[in-house]
Amino acid sequence: MEAISAVPQASRLTAIYRVTDTAANIAARAKAIAVEQSVEMPVAAITDAKILDDIVGRVEHVADLGNGTFEVRIGLAVATIGQDAGQLLNMLFGNTSLHPDVVLHDVEFPIELLTVFGGPRHGLAGLRAMAGAGARALTCSALKPQGLPPAGLASIAGQMAEGGLDFIKDDHGIANQTYSPFAARVPVIAEAVAKAGTRTVYLPSLSGHLEQMRAQIGVVRSAGLKGVLIAPMIAGFATFQQLVGDNPDLAFMAHPAMAGSGQIAPSLLFGKLLRLLGADAVVFTNYGGRFGYTPTICRDLAETALAPWNGIKPSVPVPAGGMTMARIPEMLQFYGPEVMLLIGGDLLSAGARMTGEAAKFQQAVMN
Amino acid sequence: MEAISAVPQASRLTAIYRVTDTAANIAARAKAIAVEQSVEMPVAAITDAKILDDIVGRVEHVADLGNGTFEVRIGLAVATIGQDAGQLLNMLFGNTSLHPDVVLHDVEFPIELLTVFGGPRHGLAGLRAMAGAGARALTCSALKPQGLPPAGLASIAGQMAEGGLDFIKDDHGIANQTYSPFAARVPVIAEAVAKAGTRTVYLPSLSGHLEQMRAQIGVVRSAGLKGVLIAPMIAGFATFQQLVGDNPDLAFMAHPAMAGSGQIAPSLLFGKLLRLLGADAVVFTNYGGRFGYTPTICRDLAETALAPWNGIKPSVPVPAGGMTMARIPEMLQFYGPEVMLLIGGDLLSAGARMTGEAAKFQQAVMN
Repeated sequence: MEAISAVPQASRLTAIYRVTDTAANIAARAKAIAVEQSVEMPVAAITDAKILDDIVGRVEHVADLGNGTFEVRIGLAVATIGQDAGQLLNMLFGNTSLHPDVVLHDVEFPIELLTVFGGPRHGLAGLRAMAGAGARALTCSALKPQGLPPAGLASIAGQMAEGGLDFIKDDHGIANQTYSPFAARVPVIAEAVAKAGTRTVYLPSLSGHLEQMRAQIGVVRSAGLKGVLIAPMIAGFATFQQLVGDNPDLAFMAHPAMAGSGQIAPSLLFGKLLRLLGADAVVFTNYGGRFGYTPTICRDLAETALAPWNGIKPSVPVPAGGMTMARIPEMLQFYGPEVMLLIGGDLLSAGARMTGEAAKFQQAVMN
Repeated sequence: MEAISAVPQASRLTAIYRVTDTAANIAARAKAIAVEQSVEMPVAAITDAKILDDIVGRVEHVADLGNGTFEVRIGLAVATIGQDAGQLLNMLFGNTSLHPDVVLHDVEFPIELLTVFGGPRHGLAGLRAMAGAGARALTCSALKPQGLPPAGLASIAGQMAEGGLDFIKDDHGIANQTYSPFAARVPVIAEAVAKAGTRTVYLPSLSGHLEQMRAQIGVVRSAGLKGVLIAPMIAGFATFQQLVGDNPDLAFMAHPAMAGSGQIAPSLLFGKLLRLLGADAVVFTNYGGRFGYTPTICRDLAETALAPWNGIKPSVPVPAGGMTMARIPEMLQFYGPEVMLLIGGDLLSAGARMTGEAAKFQQAVMN
C-alpha cells in the first residue's frame, strides 16, 4: 500500500482542489482561491512583506485533468491554523465550500501538523486488541430503533453480545431524548452487554456540545465502557479534537452524519481528516447500499484510512448503510481483513433469532 | 412580508426536501427518507406501536415540481430532537446529506421548538439600538489581513471607527494564531475603537470549542465589547446554541464558513436555522461578488431572515463577499434599509485614506 507523503517544507500544507472552470480562467481562479483561503483581501493592498511571503496562500501547481476540471494545489501557511482542528477546516475550505464548482480533493500535511493532531490513539491494532481479535475483520451492529426505552435497547444489545459481536454502537440518532436519556440508558445497556460474558465492546453515541459530551463520557467511564461514537461534522472538529486528546484510553468511532455529498472528497474526509483528528474507526456509506458511493470511492477511502502515514495509526474502515448478512463474503473479498463490518437493520430484522444471527455474523469473520 | 407559518400539531416538525428522482420511484423514495431521518431500520421489524405512531417519520406530501424534481414533506417527531441544536441538524439532514440528489429545502417548526431555541436575543432592532441607528441600513467592515500583529489590526480598526462605521468584525480567518493571539489582540483593538469616540461596535471572531470560546468571551467582556462573530457550521450548532443562551446580552453575528454550496437551501440555513439558534445578523455571499448566489436566492434569504415568525426576532441580513463602495446605492435599492452592508477588501484598499472612505461609506446609509 502506498504511503501518504508528508509535505517537506514545514511551514505550509498543500490543499488540493478540483475546480470546474475554463482553461482561460483557471490561473486567475487558482490565485483567487489562494487569497480566499488565506488573507481574503486584495493582495495589492497588503504592504507587509512578511504577510506576503509567509501568510498569503501560494498557487503551487495547476493541472488540466480534462473535461473542464483542473487540479489546483495551494500552499497554505501552517501559522494560520495553529493547533485548532476547527481552524484547520476553516483555512482548508471555509469560504471556498460556498463555491459549487470546487471540491476539496486532498491535503498534504507537514509533519508538524501530524504531530499536533496525532491521529488515532488505538486504530486498527488497538480495536482488534480490545475485541480480542487477531488479524481478521471486525464485526459491529447498531442499536435501534430510537424511541425504545433503555430496557428495550438493553435487551437487543444483550442478544447481540451473546452472539459474540465485537462492537455494538448506538444508532447515531439516539442522543439524550426523554424516552431514553443518556445517563439512564448507557449503564443499563452496558450491564446487559457485560452479562453476556463475551468481549463485546459497546460504543454509546455522544451528542450536544463539549460540556455535555464530557458529562456523557463520565457516564461511559462509570459504566466501565471503552469507547464512544461521535459525529464530528455535527459536534465540530475542535470538540472532537479535544475529546480525543482528553481521553486517549477511549476508542472513538466517527459517524458520517452531515458529511454532505462529496464536496470534501470522501477519501480525504474519512481517510485523512477524521483519521488525523483521532478517529479509531470511520463509518462510511458502502457501495450497493442505501447511499451513492461507488466501489472506487470506497476502495480509495479504505486504502487511505489504512495507508502508512508517518507513524499515524490506521483508522479502521467501517462500510455501512444498508449492509446485509448475505453480503458478508463479498465485502470480505472486497476489503480484506482490515475492515469492520457494520450490519444494523438486517440483524435487527431477525427478531427472536437475533442471538443466533449475530453468532452467524461473527462466525463469518472468524475463519 | 409573508409570515413564516408554524406547524399546528405540536409533536412534529415538517422537513421539506427537494429530491431528484423518477415519478415511478418517488413514493418509495419519500418513505425511505422518512425512515432514514428517524428510526433508520426496516419498519417491518419494529413491533412497538408507540414507536410506529410517534417516532417513525411520516410522509406528509409529495409534489411534482417538474423537470424530475419533487418536493417531499416529512413529519419528524420533536421528541427525537429534544432541546439540542446539533440533534436538530442530525434529525433534519444527518444521513440524507450524504445523498447528492437531495436538498434540505425548508423546515416548518412547531411553536415548542421556537420556544426551545428562542431566536436572536437582539435582532435587527437590537443591533440598530447598539449602533445608535434609526430605521436605516447598518454598515460593517472586516479587519484584515490575518498575519498582522494586534497593533496593525488596531490601527486599521481605529481608522474605520473614526470614519464612524456601525460595526467592525474580525476576518473569520483571524483566530488565535501566535502572530495575533485572541487575548492579546482583542483588548488592543477594542481600545483603538473606543478611542475614536464614535459608537462603532467591534465583533471579535470566536474559534475552537465551547471551553475556548467561553474563555474568549471572557476577554470580550473584559474589553467592554458587546458582541462576537462565530462560524456555526465549524463551531457546531450545539456550541453556538449554548453560547447564545449563556450570553443573552451579547450580539452574535454568524459567518457562513463551511456552509457548503447549497445542499441546505441558503434561505433555510441563514434565514431560519441560524436565526432560530440566535444569530442577530447573518453574513451571506451576495450576488455579483466573488460567490455564486443569485439575486433570487439573496432576496429569499433576506426576506426569510426578516419575516414575522411567531415573535422570533428578525436576523439582520449581511450581504458580503467582494462588495464595493460603488455598489452601495444598488444594494440599498435591492435590500432596502433592513440590511447591514459589509465592505471589507475595497475599504482596506484605501490605505491612508481609510478614515475618509469609511466616513463616506457611513454617510451613504445615513440619508
